[in-house]
Amino acid sequence: MADRSALDPQTEQRIRDSIGRQTLLSTLGVTIAGIWPGRVELDLPYRADLCQQNGFVHAGAITTLADSACGYAAASLMPEDRDVLTVEFKVNLLSPARGDRFRATGEVMRAGRTLTVCSAEVIAWADDGDGNPDTQLVRVALMQATMMAVTRSG
Amino acid sequence: MADRSALDPQTEQRIRDSIGRQTLLSTLGVTIAGIWPGRVELDLPYRADLCQQNGFVHAGAITTLADSACGYAAASLMPEDRDVLTVEFKVNLLSPARGDRFRATGEVMRAGRTLTVCSAEVIAWADDGDGNPDTQLVRVALMQATMMAVTRSG
Amino acid sequence: MADRSALDPQTEQRIRDSIGRQTLLSTLGVTIAGIWPGRVELDLPYRADLCQQNGFVHAGAITTLADSACGYAAASLMPEDRDVLTVEFKVNLLSPARGDRFRATGEVMRAGRTLTVCSAEVIAWADDGDGNPDTQLVRVALMQATMMAVTRSG
Amino acid sequence: MADRSALDPQTEQRIRDSIGRQTLLSTLGVTIAGIWPGRVELDLPYRADLCQQNGFVHAGAITTLADSACGYAAASLMPEDRDVLTVEFKVNLLSPARGDRFRATGEVMRAGRTLTVCSAEVIAWADDGDGNPDTQLVRVALMQATMMAVTRSG
Repeated sequence: MADRSALDPQTEQRIRDSIGRQTLLSTLGVTIAGIWPGRVELDLPYRADLCQQNGFVHAGAITTLADSACGYAAASLMPEDRDVLTVEFKVNLLSPARGDRFRATGEVMRAGRTLTVCSAEVIAWADDGDGNPDTQLVRVALMQATMMAVTRSG
Repeated sequence: MADRSALDPQTEQRIRDSIGRQTLLSTLGVTIAGIWPGRVELDLPYRADLCQQNGFVHAGAITTLADSACGYAAASLMPEDRDVLTVEFKVNLLSPARGDRFRATGEVMRAGRTLTVCSAEVIAWADDGDGNPDTQLVRVALMQATMMAVTRSG
Repeated sequence: MADRSALDPQTEQRIRDSIGRQTLLSTLGVTIAGIWPGRVELDLPYRADLCQQNGFVHAGAITTLADSACGYAAASLMPEDRDVLTVEFKVNLLSPARGDRFRATGEVMRAGRTLTVCSAEVIAWADDGDGNPDTQLVRVALMQATMMAVTRSG
Repeated sequence: MADRSALDPQTEQRIRDSIGRQTLLSTLGVTIAGIWPGRVELDLPYRADLCQQNGFVHAGAITTLADSACGYAAASLMPEDRDVLTVEFKVNLLSPARGDRFRATGEVMRAGRTLTVCSAEVIAWADDGDGNPDTQLVRVALMQATMMAVTRSG
């Protein structure tokens, strides 16, 4: 369902605005890496205050990243008056989340009028200090998620 | 698998220490509500910086809470030299996370030598300002999770 | 959501008719153990032609049983003109499915207008030859499922 | 993890033998479409006795197919003395299973010593009567699964 053509500017702005209102994403330091029709990439730079007991990034932070990438991938294919809620998701944690930066790629697998099914993977990257991901290290998580379109409340 | 008898003090201390090393939990403001053999309760008070686009607490924060409750419920039944990693989990978000406080109860459903299966539910509560949950509002999430025992690294 | 009061006879008949139209359930030998509002119990007697490579009942048969119990638990709370489709489910296989009979109990955890979330567990039983489950052996599976109400087609 | 090079003949024979011992697969009419390292394809031809209440193939049969494809994809990368058990899986049913034939492709996403994570998709096909899938209709299911290597019992 995902392609790499440009998303129309209004939809992209609507998604950027919605991401901007997700205060948890700001709290965790999530940034937007790319938005396409049916595909959204979000980045989470490593921070020492986002970890589990062994110093790897917490599964909860990785899951938040993947869930948001899935939700906005679904939103990118919906009409303007719709909002997206997460119905459910399933995550497999494949490797400890060790790296400088984590990138979640969420993609729409099936878009329906009410329900949209998405997949996401999260990849760990090493930076060389220039603020860009340089070396792909390992896939740390796989998500399969169901999103629901609801009438926008505000 | 869970009972309400007291956990032995050493295991409880080991779990409290491990929770204390999970920096994401401090960042989100998670506190311990109770620890029993095979059962752990964790609280997340509402904060405006943990929300999604409509002002409800983000599914990612609710999931972090439930995942941690499951992981420590599993840890409470393991020998001292074991650490717990999340293999995978599945979450259904049942209602928008609206409330003053969210309590996740994680319970062991089957304890194996390598793998432990846990369930968690997250309930929203209203406070009357005394810092304790007073009125149970609604169940916001259900989790089914698989945890793995690994040899403790440090 | 489930209670043990009697289901109204028309809804019960509607569910029995629908189960009767599920030809896979007849093929596998599934029988109805009980129907209540928000709760359905289905039985699968052991058969040698339903097994995996080691002679235990196949996870696919156990899953079919649990999925059907969840779907009909959801249907028991819906108006007459609605049919139920499975959106998704997640199963943990807790123990090899060894026994004379397997009973799935599906229960509604949250009933919505469009989506209903259910849980199921499957228990293995030993018979003493009277055709009734006599001794509960072990819990073999846990399911968490999402069901969708659609307008009945026929 | 999957490639299209030939699997060594002994491993392929071991997998064919194990599939042959899964009596549920014979009962449902499942056949092998292809085996590669880390990738297994299984076919389920439509039969009227494998359906749900509306005449589509039952989610339980589709799930059995996908679970088996994942399990044998995992087995194809394991040493000879290992057997595979399903720990858990999650399935999204994307479309009603309408068609002449259903093909599940299971692939290994991460192979570990103890746990292997797999994905599967199930596609519906129309036949023109020659016994081969001719026209791809629609993707009916997506699975994400965890498999465990255990010491072979027999």
